[in-house]
Amino acid sequence: MNHRTPAATVGVVGGGQLGRMMGEAAGPLGIELLVSDPTPDCPAAPIVREQIVGEFDDYDAIRELAERADVLTFEIELADPDEMARVGEETDTPVHPDPDTLRTIQDKLVQNRALAETGVPLPAFRRVDDADDLRDAGEELGWPLMLKAREGGYDGRGNRPVDAPEEIDEALDEIGGPALAEELVDFERELAIMGAVGDGETDAYPVTETIQREEILRESVAPARIDDAVRDRARKVAFDVLDLLDGRGVYGIELFETDDGDILVNEIAPRPHNSGHWTIEGTRCSQFEQHLRAVLGWPLGDTALRSPAVTANLLGDVESPRPAELVGTDSILETPEASLHWYGKREVRPLRKMGHVTLADDEHGRDALLSRARELVDDVTFE
Amino acid sequence: MNHRTPAATVGVVGGGQLGRMMGEAAGPLGIELLVSDPTPDCPAAPIVREQIVGEFDDYDAIRELAERADVLTFEIELADPDEMARVGEETDTPVHPDPDTLRTIQDKLVQNRALAETGVPLPAFRRVDDADDLRDAGEELGWPLMLKAREGGYDGRGNRPVDAPEEIDEALDEIGGPALAEELVDFERELAIMGAVGDGETDAYPVTETIQREEILRESVAPARIDDAVRDRARKVAFDVLDLLDGRGVYGIELFETDDGDILVNEIAPRPHNSGHWTIEGTRCSQFEQHLRAVLGWPLGDTALRSPAVTANLLGDVESPRPAELVGTDSILETPEASLHWYGKREVRPLRKMGHVTLADDEHGRDALLSRARELVDDVTFE
Repeated sequence: MNHRTPAATVGVVGGGQLGRMMGEAAGPLGIELLVSDPTPDCPAAPIVREQIVGEFDDYDAIRELAERADVLTFEIELADPDEMARVGEETDTPVHPDPDTLRTIQDKLVQNRALAETGVPLPAFRRVDDADDLRDAGEELGWPLMLKAREGGYDGRGNRPVDAPEEIDEALDEIGGPALAEELVDFERELAIMGAVGDGETDAYPVTETIQREEILRESVAPARIDDAVRDRARKVAFDVLDLLDGRGVYGIELFETDDGDILVNEIAPRPHNSGHWTIEGTRCSQFEQHLRAVLGWPLGDTALRSPAVTANLLGDVESPRPAELVGTDSILETPEASLHWYGKREVRPLRKMGHVTLADDEHGRDALLSRARELVDDVTFE
Repeated sequence: MNHRTPAATVGVVGGGQLGRMMGEAAGPLGIELLVSDPTPDCPAAPIVREQIVGEFDDYDAIRELAERADVLTFEIELADPDEMARVGEETDTPVHPDPDTLRTIQDKLVQNRALAETGVPLPAFRRVDDADDLRDAGEELGWPLMLKAREGGYDGRGNRPVDAPEEIDEALDEIGGPALAEELVDFERELAIMGAVGDGETDAYPVTETIQREEILRESVAPARIDDAVRDRARKVAFDVLDLLDGRGVYGIELFETDDGDILVNEIAPRPHNSGHWTIEGTRCSQFEQHLRAVLGWPLGDTALRSPAVTANLLGDVESPRPAELVGTDSILETPEASLHWYGKREVRPLRKMGHVTLADDEHGRDALLSRARELVDDVTFE
């Protein structure tokens, strides 16, 4: 194949930080991005060619993206797979990843069933439509367990640990809809692998260790501080998952490393993922450039580690929403191995992801990078 | 100082590839760029917040930049220093580098005199207004010599070697205006140093080796393949030059390494420069990010070498202008250590700078990187 430059316009449903970072990766390659997003002046807007203002299921907005782009993709699971499929057919525009893949992933029960059917290891789970289902699930899986909304969960929203049968009604009320129960895994670490499916090729970045608090990703460490056997098992599971997915693109595969060193799949994201932000500095081809290459059918880029890297998220440290103003960034800017990434969100909210800092470096160990990243993030405030 | 994010908008006179790459560097830092450029949909346009269409001396365009920006800068020597100074005063907007510095650099005779006055080593030169001046210059400096237009030269245009007195009239006709004559230096290599002047701090990137053909930069190799004594002399000269310049920003300092190992200053660019493009992959803080940090008065970033790097330019290999379409980029995209940079120019012209490829790598030597970069660039064509 002989790709022509400039030739490529990518239409992206969603214009949050992932769309913004795709835009940052697009420029050097001569790729232009169009995004659709309901928030006027969304994070991607100042970076990309144009934002079309529209909901994630707005037919007209998605249709305009498709008409002007060579390929249609998305950066948020709320993108509507039916509208994307319809528009793709109407305009003869390829959609990647496949809308069917998005449909499967949007419903965690369907996702788990699809994985379980093909032998991918994952925590035991049960469908939960009512209190009886949840009681049965608890008896089979044991208490405590994790109750998850089947659709729409994000950054811990939609996940609720249930300690005992007494909490059943309250937990179901909180989730407020169709759910599934999962056994609570005793894990040693949470891991993630960013995989890429290209045109006849599949690749994966080094295994990342992810550190959550209050079910929100706080830091990621790459490569993960795990032994080689665990790494090899994690990679094997990740490639098995990638084989199941239809359509090109980057996929985030979240994993548990159990106390016994086994690997279980936690969740899949059909897009670049927070746990892969370190690839911007830590590899030669970031997950964002990789996603663009993949959806366009261009050759995949290099996924090898360039330097060990640690990313720490800049989360909203406020009690209530207010205009975003981050104070104290000098310590980040003055740290040679630190790179600041700001998402351009106008409003800060409690625990909202506002940016991140990556430390990439060959000389200090990963423990030291992690400590330093935490210090730098603690030094800045929105208050 | 405690910088606030998001806080920064930078107004840039000029929106060519340098403005485009400034835009690519601005996003992660939460900096927004506005550019003014006479060409609608200039290279920077799809990357930055907004392009204002206007000539480089268009008062209204520069005034709009200044009114909307925290600092005014430029990416092309054709920017009008008088209008920038006037607008800066009217709107109380800082202008960096100082318009006086730009004025000095715009006139090569004034530039050379300013450098010579303070003892910076440079080739012997004479002012040339007419044929008698050029004849005298030849007798003093020896034939052949280099005749240079005082203003407006770029990529070899405005430079003309003169072999003997018989060529005087033809050479002056070609230059067509006030000029200077310089002794033709027997150089071993051409070198360049990208320097940065920040708020009370000055720094410089590793010495780059630059390879020209037909007086156009073709490749740069970093760090330069020179011995430590030459490197130290080059850095000392560069810091001496930086001391003379008023205003913050990144400066490109082009040097000759003579056959005797001496360093002479060739030219200064008051902006990021082609010979520093390798810093995008070869260091942690590219010359473009550095320029933005500098003009905003933010702390300067890390200039240390991350990996040796070689950049090769993608020049228009056509006989006459035509719509730009680059064929054969797969070999670049498939090379793990290669990064493609496309400038988004709609029209290719003979020898026009359309993009570049950088190979950054710790394992292969610089000779091998240079060979590979040349192969990759030879593999693509606009024909």
